[in-house]
Amino acid sequence: MAPLNVGIVGATGAVGKEIIGCLEKCCSFPIDSLRLFGSKRSAGRKIDTSKFGNITIELFSEDSARECDVVFLAVDGDFSRAHAENICKGDDGAIVIDNSSAFRYKEGIPLVVPEINAETTKGKKLIANPNCTTAIGLMAVWPLHQLFGLSKMVMSTYQAASGAGQPCMDELMEGTRSVLNGERDVAENKVFAHPLPFNVIPHIDKFQDNGYTKEEMKVTWETRKICGLADDFPVSCTAVRIPTARAHSESIVALFDTPVDIVAARKALEEAPGVKLVDDIENLKYPMPLTATGQYDVEVGRLRRNIAFDNALEFFVCGDQLLRGAALNAVLVAEAMVKNGSLKSKNAM
Amino acid sequence: MAPLNVGIVGATGAVGKEIIGCLEKCCSFPIDSLRLFGSKRSAGRKIDTSKFGNITIELFSEDSARECDVVFLAVDGDFSRAHAENICKGDDGAIVIDNSSAFRYKEGIPLVVPEINAETTKGKKLIANPNCTTAIGLMAVWPLHQLFGLSKMVMSTYQAASGAGQPCMDELMEGTRSVLNGERDVAENKVFAHPLPFNVIPHIDKFQDNGYTKEEMKVTWETRKICGLADDFPVSCTAVRIPTARAHSESIVALFDTPVDIVAARKALEEAPGVKLVDDIENLKYPMPLTATGQYDVEVGRLRRNIAFDNALEFFVCGDQLLRGAALNAVLVAEAMVKNGSLKSKNAM
Repeated sequence: MAPLNVGIVGATGAVGKEIIGCLEKCCSFPIDSLRLFGSKRSAGRKIDTSKFGNITIELFSEDSARECDVVFLAVDGDFSRAHAENICKGDDGAIVIDNSSAFRYKEGIPLVVPEINAETTKGKKLIANPNCTTAIGLMAVWPLHQLFGLSKMVMSTYQAASGAGQPCMDELMEGTRSVLNGERDVAENKVFAHPLPFNVIPHIDKFQDNGYTKEEMKVTWETRKICGLADDFPVSCTAVRIPTARAHSESIVALFDTPVDIVAARKALEEAPGVKLVDDIENLKYPMPLTATGQYDVEVGRLRRNIAFDNALEFFVCGDQLLRGAALNAVLVAEAMVKNGSLKSKNAM
Repeated sequence: MAPLNVGIVGATGAVGKEIIGCLEKCCSFPIDSLRLFGSKRSAGRKIDTSKFGNITIELFSEDSARECDVVFLAVDGDFSRAHAENICKGDDGAIVIDNSSAFRYKEGIPLVVPEINAETTKGKKLIANPNCTTAIGLMAVWPLHQLFGLSKMVMSTYQAASGAGQPCMDELMEGTRSVLNGERDVAENKVFAHPLPFNVIPHIDKFQDNGYTKEEMKVTWETRKICGLADDFPVSCTAVRIPTARAHSESIVALFDTPVDIVAARKALEEAPGVKLVDDIENLKYPMPLTATGQYDVEVGRLRRNIAFDNALEFFVCGDQLLRGAALNAVLVAEAMVKNGSLKSKNAM
């Protein structure tokens, strides 16, 4: 195939950097050029890449972005809302893969975990990348749903500081240091609602009228859309920030329509792309941030028949929220669109 | 009433120290003398208390312990198994309140959270104190069970390092320091199965044949016994160690036999002894280790109607595992036994 012109908007952010990494390390399609776009603040700066050389960040404009074949938006929802549709508009626009939540719930815009619903990208110009918590959890849930038919899901999360961006990560590290050094009994907090060091905060994103947070409802809303389930399909979540640096963990109880078979479940997870079954309790192997950080695969383990419900499994999942939860997923979306013919070089047309 | 002679075995441990604190600060019965018992290693050491003066630790013997009216055992299960029944045996033995898991599941031995089943202590000589995770969670679940009739429960825990003892707490702090100082990429681990700093470990206590850990099954077994539920009552738990110092948190979904009413649930929790409703999301108030540590009351918040099940509530609980989960609960058991006449001074008989 003709190599693609690829653009990243927000290349200096945590997710943007990881997208560059994924394009360098795991991308299966040929790339002609990588263009990085940023704000006035970052335009002109150079980013050194191993595969694409030293790239100068260009000032973002819709017209420049439209010249690309595919553009990854690693920016906030307001930016995406303002520009995404203009970048992909018309036959000469670029395919846009948006990491924000701006378009996730919009009808007609696919919300995609490629291992689950890659086919929904066919012929589309704008694709939404899911919330990290949902994407990580569904990597484990989907293969089991294929076997037994999901009927309900309950999730509790253990989410890392960096899920809220680099300043949050810095606040955790600095705050932890200040407590350990005895400078403060309780760490200072500016970006988090409360001090995170040696604490947990059961509050991520805004509260909704039903008492759930938006982060929790994202798991409900996005599970339904990605898995093609009913609009009232029962999924509940408690989302909790904990003092870890990177990789989100999730405790999941999944109820099914049909009897569960642990051997078949284990086999399905072993064979599922993007999943690493880490479930050898005799040798103390189970999913942990320590081992899941920086890995493309989502770790799944502690798989057991739930003892409170019939036809239910309980398991623990841990995945790198910047990779599976964002950058890697976005690059895999592009790969899937190359495969199904939705993404190709405009030069070759 | 005639003041009591009180003994503590294991007074230099984390729980033993907290029992002294509770006897000093919140105990409603008069105390004639406090005797502290320890091993050869600690016998002869002195412990300074504000209320009972400077106490020299005595070498433990069953005979000395039997001289007390009530003895708190803050030791491991093997020690309790070897000595508890000898200490309380006969009319001249002492009432024994045991913090270990040695007798929790034994028929005829009450397993007690005083706010729930204090009446089971009546006329008994040996009482088992529950696992900290169970005791903390049930403080919230019990008042709701009274209202709506519990039918199933799902719990995921966020457990602090100190739940596993002082060496574990030290390992977390030292390990965190070594990572922050750049001495090590990953902290050393000796007492935990894996490094805990900036990590989570979904494994507490031994694995059972059904894939659950013993810590998880304790929640199932002890919930049934304390709440007087059926032997097969459906409760499931995922127990996870996280890098916090003190106070365990729990995400709980509780299903009920009858329709739930949030206003009534809130009122019941507000009025429940030992519970503090911390649930003012507009002002960012919810249970957290930061606020629950050192508090006698268990914090309950994030109360909401669960969206995946009919007749179900979802909430977040945080309690000091050394207090409600151990020391405070034990002292409240003694208070309850004073009130129901099971514990009185032998001198006064």
